[in-house]
Amino acid sequence: MTSTTPATSSGWRATGVADLSTETLELIDKWWRAANYLSVGQIYLLDNPLLRKPLHRDDVKPRLLGHWGTTPGLTFLYAHLNRAIKEREQSTVYITGPGHGGPGLVAAAYLDGTYSEVYSDITKDDEGIRRLFKQFSFPGGIPSHVAPETPGSIHEGGELGYALSHAYGAAFDNPDLLVAAVVGDGEAETGPLATSWHSNKFVNPAQDGVVLPILHLNGYKIANPTVLARIPQDELKALMEGYGHKPHFFEVEDESTEDAASFHRRFATLLDEVLDEIAAIKARAAAGDESRPQWPMIVFRTPKGWTGPATIDGKKTTGSWRAHQVPLASARDTEEHLHDLETWLKSYGPEELFDEDGAVLPEITDALTPSGSLRMSDNPHANGGLLLKDLRLPDFRDFAVDVPTPGGAIAEAPRELGKFFTEVIRRNPDNFRIFGPDETASNRLQAVYEETDKQWNADFYGGDVDEHMSRAGRVVEMLSEHQVQGWLEGYLLTGRHGMMSSYEAFIHIVNSMFNQHAKWLKVTNEIPWRRPIASLNYLLSSHVWRQDHNGFSHQDPGFIDHVVNKKAEVVRVYLPADANTLLSTYDHCLRSRQLVNVVVSGKQPSPQWLTMDEAVEHCTRGLGIWEWAGTETDGEEPDVVLAAAGDVPTIEVLAAADILRQEVPGLKVRVINVVDLMKLQDPKEHPHGLSDKEFDGLFTTDKPILFAYHGYPWLIHRLTYRRNGHDNIHVRGYKEEGTTTTPFDMVMLNDMDRYHLVIDVIDRVPGMASRYAGLRQRMQDARIRARAYTREHGDDIPEVRDWVWPDAQNLASTSQVDATLFTGGDNE
Amino acid sequence: MTSTTPATSSGWRATGVADLSTETLELIDKWWRAANYLSVGQIYLLDNPLLRKPLHRDDVKPRLLGHWGTTPGLTFLYAHLNRAIKEREQSTVYITGPGHGGPGLVAAAYLDGTYSEVYSDITKDDEGIRRLFKQFSFPGGIPSHVAPETPGSIHEGGELGYALSHAYGAAFDNPDLLVAAVVGDGEAETGPLATSWHSNKFVNPAQDGVVLPILHLNGYKIANPTVLARIPQDELKALMEGYGHKPHFFEVEDESTEDAASFHRRFATLLDEVLDEIAAIKARAAAGDESRPQWPMIVFRTPKGWTGPATIDGKKTTGSWRAHQVPLASARDTEEHLHDLETWLKSYGPEELFDEDGAVLPEITDALTPSGSLRMSDNPHANGGLLLKDLRLPDFRDFAVDVPTPGGAIAEAPRELGKFFTEVIRRNPDNFRIFGPDETASNRLQAVYEETDKQWNADFYGGDVDEHMSRAGRVVEMLSEHQVQGWLEGYLLTGRHGMMSSYEAFIHIVNSMFNQHAKWLKVTNEIPWRRPIASLNYLLSSHVWRQDHNGFSHQDPGFIDHVVNKKAEVVRVYLPADANTLLSTYDHCLRSRQLVNVVVSGKQPSPQWLTMDEAVEHCTRGLGIWEWAGTETDGEEPDVVLAAAGDVPTIEVLAAADILRQEVPGLKVRVINVVDLMKLQDPKEHPHGLSDKEFDGLFTTDKPILFAYHGYPWLIHRLTYRRNGHDNIHVRGYKEEGTTTTPFDMVMLNDMDRYHLVIDVIDRVPGMASRYAGLRQRMQDARIRARAYTREHGDDIPEVRDWVWPDAQNLASTSQVDATLFTGGDNE
Ligand SMILES: Cc1ncc(C[n+]2csc(CCOP(=O)(O)OP(=O)(O)O)c2C)c(N)n1
Ligand SMILES: Cc1ncc(C[n+]2csc(CCOP(=O)(O)OP(=O)(O)O)c2C)c(N)n1
Ligand SMILES: [Mg+2]
Ligand SMILES: [Mg+2]
Repeated sequence: MTSTTPATSSGWRATGVADLSTETLELIDKWWRAANYLSVGQIYLLDNPLLRKPLHRDDVKPRLLGHWGTTPGLTFLYAHLNRAIKEREQSTVYITGPGHGGPGLVAAAYLDGTYSEVYSDITKDDEGIRRLFKQFSFPGGIPSHVAPETPGSIHEGGELGYALSHAYGAAFDNPDLLVAAVVGDGEAETGPLATSWHSNKFVNPAQDGVVLPILHLNGYKIANPTVLARIPQDELKALMEGYGHKPHFFEVEDESTEDAASFHRRFATLLDEVLDEIAAIKARAAAGDESRPQWPMIVFRTPKGWTGPATIDGKKTTGSWRAHQVPLASARDTEEHLHDLETWLKSYGPEELFDEDGAVLPEITDALTPSGSLRMSDNPHANGGLLLKDLRLPDFRDFAVDVPTPGGAIAEAPRELGKFFTEVIRRNPDNFRIFGPDETASNRLQAVYEETDKQWNADFYGGDVDEHMSRAGRVVEMLSEHQVQGWLEGYLLTGRHGMMSSYEAFIHIVNSMFNQHAKWLKVTNEIPWRRPIASLNYLLSSHVWRQDHNGFSHQDPGFIDHVVNKKAEVVRVYLPADANTLLSTYDHCLRSRQLVNVVVSGKQPSPQWLTMDEAVEHCTRGLGIWEWAGTETDGEEPDVVLAAAGDVPTIEVLAAADILRQEVPGLKVRVINVVDLMKLQDPKEHPHGLSDKEFDGLFTTDKPILFAYHGYPWLIHRLTYRRNGHDNIHVRGYKEEGTTTTPFDMVMLNDMDRYHLVIDVIDRVPGMASRYAGLRQRMQDARIRARAYTREHGDDIPEVRDWVWPDAQNLASTSQVDATLFTGGDNE
Repeated sequence: MTSTTPATSSGWRATGVADLSTETLELIDKWWRAANYLSVGQIYLLDNPLLRKPLHRDDVKPRLLGHWGTTPGLTFLYAHLNRAIKEREQSTVYITGPGHGGPGLVAAAYLDGTYSEVYSDITKDDEGIRRLFKQFSFPGGIPSHVAPETPGSIHEGGELGYALSHAYGAAFDNPDLLVAAVVGDGEAETGPLATSWHSNKFVNPAQDGVVLPILHLNGYKIANPTVLARIPQDELKALMEGYGHKPHFFEVEDESTEDAASFHRRFATLLDEVLDEIAAIKARAAAGDESRPQWPMIVFRTPKGWTGPATIDGKKTTGSWRAHQVPLASARDTEEHLHDLETWLKSYGPEELFDEDGAVLPEITDALTPSGSLRMSDNPHANGGLLLKDLRLPDFRDFAVDVPTPGGAIAEAPRELGKFFTEVIRRNPDNFRIFGPDETASNRLQAVYEETDKQWNADFYGGDVDEHMSRAGRVVEMLSEHQVQGWLEGYLLTGRHGMMSSYEAFIHIVNSMFNQHAKWLKVTNEIPWRRPIASLNYLLSSHVWRQDHNGFSHQDPGFIDHVVNKKAEVVRVYLPADANTLLSTYDHCLRSRQLVNVVVSGKQPSPQWLTMDEAVEHCTRGLGIWEWAGTETDGEEPDVVLAAAGDVPTIEVLAAADILRQEVPGLKVRVINVVDLMKLQDPKEHPHGLSDKEFDGLFTTDKPILFAYHGYPWLIHRLTYRRNGHDNIHVRGYKEEGTTTTPFDMVMLNDMDRYHLVIDVIDRVPGMASRYAGLRQRMQDARIRARAYTREHGDDIPEVRDWVWPDAQNLASTSQVDATLFTGGDNE
């Protein structure tokens, strides 16, 4: 596991169909039998690994955990891919959708030799095999799936559905890479998988690698037949052709009596044909043909649990869903199951596979193991950190928005970010991509189209309906959050950089995918041979407060809450208040490793607060006092703290501070702005957390804190509940009240508006209530007036719409600062 | 909107292709023009609704919000469906995937007359139309989507992807219902939609209704062409055939010069053919043919924004993505756009459509409006609460597990629930369904197969591989959490009952769908004419603590956190500790309305604590002191409170209480168990919340509270941060540490084990630390010993594995209580 350059590729050799000798076919079969033996051993055996003695119940694990059914198919394919890779010297990554077939991939890595290289105590002898068996699904050992612990894996496969998205993500910009991706036929029923076949319309045959999808049609899932196995073959063929693939069918019938040499020969032939087809397509592409080829795929119809016990307790097992998990569940408890297990293990003929020391016979591995990093378990693309290169980043300061005075400029923050990305793309033409569900422009990153296009390989019409589309480009868009997330993950896991943007509400669609990626990162942090990969960066624009064209269904800031449940060491959440802070934040995100960075920033024109220098300082701190906005003086305690996290909350807090400054002279208001949400948390909980001392100094321990927060208010309580001043924190945020209405009506609906914040101050600063009852009433009236205005005019009341921060009032007449609540469309 | 019985169906009349007169075709066109006029009016006009005066910029809304592009297609289909429904008297629900076409559906309901029936101020005259226009996407008005406010809608369509799942859910058990479901071609790229075409393998042609999918191939989404519009027609045909459908193609080319009568005739003919095909299939099914038919579907290829301005500002608009939202964005600001808008509106010939009072000409609506509840906007299935009947529930007490003494029985809670469901199914053979992603048996509900089967309409092989499968059955399983969630939602929204089970970790897959359903419920609560529907009930089994066969990827209890972000009035979370509490809880859930009930319960054999009578009391309270488990006495304050929520936490808390009872005599321990999580919350936040008085009494305000919680610990802080005793609450829960290991190792990994709880007590009860340093050390050692045992034996140490509650020790030798940590497989 030391190669840091991609395995040298043969340039897609077309070798023709190999004429395999009986001996070679036998070696393939032996390799397969060895892999299956090692898989069954992992699931069942605690000791006596090579059956040197009769199998005893004490040799069997007390808790039989794992999955057999999918495994023999996965090992069969591995064996054959090995043969072809060796012959063609074809760099290949193997992705197994049914990741519950973990034992099979561990066995293969062991046969490849990689396993012992990475885990030195798993030696190539009896004792090593005993350890290999024992550790599987065992406390202190390895998990049951194709987890990060498995060499060669970039896909755990526990949550089904992402095999093809990951595979295509790995293939982008890796022109010499083959990604063999096994799709479970059960997995194929998931939504994400069902749409991911269409990925073939987004790869470029010259510039990207090749995905070879293999539909593992073993007929069953946990407890049911699968849909694709129970439709006529014609229908399945039509489906695959409809998806744009050329299907190749391979079948070994359940209870078939065909001899092994025969089916191995059939599959080897088919695989050679398929790889030659791919080589031909690649050759055409190299010659300049960029049109969309009908990429081959394989339908691999074989019995579930193939080579396992035909029946158990009188019920059909092999070739049925009963083979899914651990078929002989009572192997430790009943003589019959124990005996069946021994027979099953012996059926692989271990004596023909292992020598007397327990090493696999060299002729088996010699014949089938590709060299070095051509081994799929050692392919450096599957340990992407090995290949990762830093991005060549321009200086983000060059993209600064000029902010002469706080509030003295208007900008759409993501639009400025888009300009920065343009330069990032220019400098990194082959290892940075932007993914999006048809929203890159809607989310205002369209400046990138000055430098690049949207990659597309379906039909072109040309003209202005196909603006910014071409066969190669850095932006990849499909209307599937699952697909773009999966592509991005695959791209990052293989050592590249990228980001995706999404409407804030709909990023929930990939909550579970985020979970799995965060879990992967957490585990890889603990695996020394896994090298750090680039962070997964989100830009959530079109957020809850400004879903002007849409409504309640598009208003949901809860992704942040979801994210902070994951290990603190792998998640970050940023809420930049303006363009310069967004730029500084994103520069930081693009440099980071092993994280998921969630950045939320509105896309509508909005006042700008900080110069670039101020923004850099602010982002470096993560939060800070905006002294220009408050009314406190050095040396004195503030009377109240107004805090904001998020662009819209910042506007409301500043507007409230403005009112207080005018209406309550002498009130000492401290204004705090938070960019890095994790600063609020206890440093014991999150590495970014402020020390209690710093927190107490900033927020005080005894003064009321009014906190206007972008999302659901309770998150702020959750993050701060251990802080000294916690009982004084009063949070305003989104409380699930929304519809299609004006921006200010939205904040009023959720009581986060400037007027309500002033009321909150009056209610909470001791002694104000009776002295400022008049102001309080004026604030209530202002709310009523503002609401009534919207009902009549459909727009926000001018005093709100045209509000600018006092220092910027002299600029207010210029066009620079007159569009605070403007509503841009979504498909500009 | 008063019908409470389904519209009488004609029994699927085959009428043949109607020979439509030119006059009828003209009326269809007029209806369509009227609907389009009314749609454009909604998007743009504040006043001057029927253009009685020249259009002035003040007539235009200041904020132009909404979506035009999809709308003319939706209205076209509505017009033609109307014609056919009227002729065939075919009860029909209309589902529009691109729900952003809200104006079109509001217009159609207005033309149907339903709108004015439901909203009496939207009258059939100039003033009514002015109000209709103004209210759209307007503060205090209606949202931009096909929201709950829209008569006839069960599908908001804001988050794209669920049109077909909802449609099939509506069709189940509604044999006479046609569900016309429009799928956006962009929407078709989403994962959930891509797999939902396979729903046709799960409906029964005799017993279920019919879904007619209509792929709205308008070629574009927000800012891109769509995949399905840019593949050759052959490929699209193959795709649909591969999905098992028979596609019918209809096309009107962009910039076509075909006259309206001609394309209307072509579509009417096609629709009649399709409906006749459906009628023929239905007739065959009625005659006993249950085989899977090739259900027709329509590919509706028409220009995006059809009938809108061809170009705007020199750029192609109609027939492009530029038509998606509000094409003439500057209609209020530039003369040119204002003029173009007027021309566009006039192109529909309003003077030929409306009389001088502003009423639509009666001949138009008379010709095309079906009567009463045959109007799609008045179909009672689309206001499911109208048709909802209470379930006939057996007495759940009859399914009680016998618990002679606490801990004196072992049971798998969901297995007992399955027995209850069996009887529910028996008594409610046509309005209760169980949905699941291939996990109904894995989640231990398999008792239901005594009464029913899994419904399946793909190939059958027969024999024991097809156990419990048949063409009609109450259980519907497909390996797609999206699909089963969507089906269940559609089923509930049309007035039936149901539940779904899922692995706890993977329910995150439908987080966003849950969001949308919860939002729908919240809004319908505020709409008087929408009647309450049955709650959406989850059973999350195979939970974080007992994912024995799997590992880290399957360990995630965060769905609860996600759920509690939604409005308190629509969500409930229950964590029953044993079978009897689960039964009592679920009985309650099945009787409830307008809620999402999340019930988490492990599936492995587990000790039972409460008799049924105790369980009923406990569930009615929602939480309570388990006096038998504690060591306090009436009249005295406890020294410490041990609280548990969840089955595994309950075991650990009781085991800790057992140790404390033996080792620290005299320590007054109070044991509290929480079933209904929402009891913890402030009553101002959640209707179930305990009053502060009750909470203080139970938890004390000054004693340490050790809370063992099923999920992420901070949720307990979030729920209780306003409570007086909050600072004393110390929560143990899942902190994202996991892998494939033993049950006790899992709780140890997360410091929620009995030994750690005892340590926590020693650390927190004042004065114990120094007096019980020895015990503390013994607890640390016990952890080390327990961990070491797992590493050697792969099983939990006997003192843990065989632990039983003291009162049950005399039963411990019997088989009744010896399997606390047994691990059943997932596909038994
Ligand atoms: C999204 C998701 N839902 C449910 C499960 C639970 N599960 C684990 S394996 C499995 C069946 C998989 O069947 P298939 O893809 O055909 O794999 P194979 O037959 O090769 O084992 C299911 C439903 C899961 N892992 N992921
Ligand atoms: C899941 C999801 N992702 C993104 C969006 C944002 N969005 C709204 S409309 C739209 C395009 C829809 O295109 P299509 O389905 O073809 O509808 P139509 O062309 O009929 O408007 C997108 C991407 C969404 N509504 N839902
Ligand atoms: Mg399968
Ligand atoms: Mg479209």
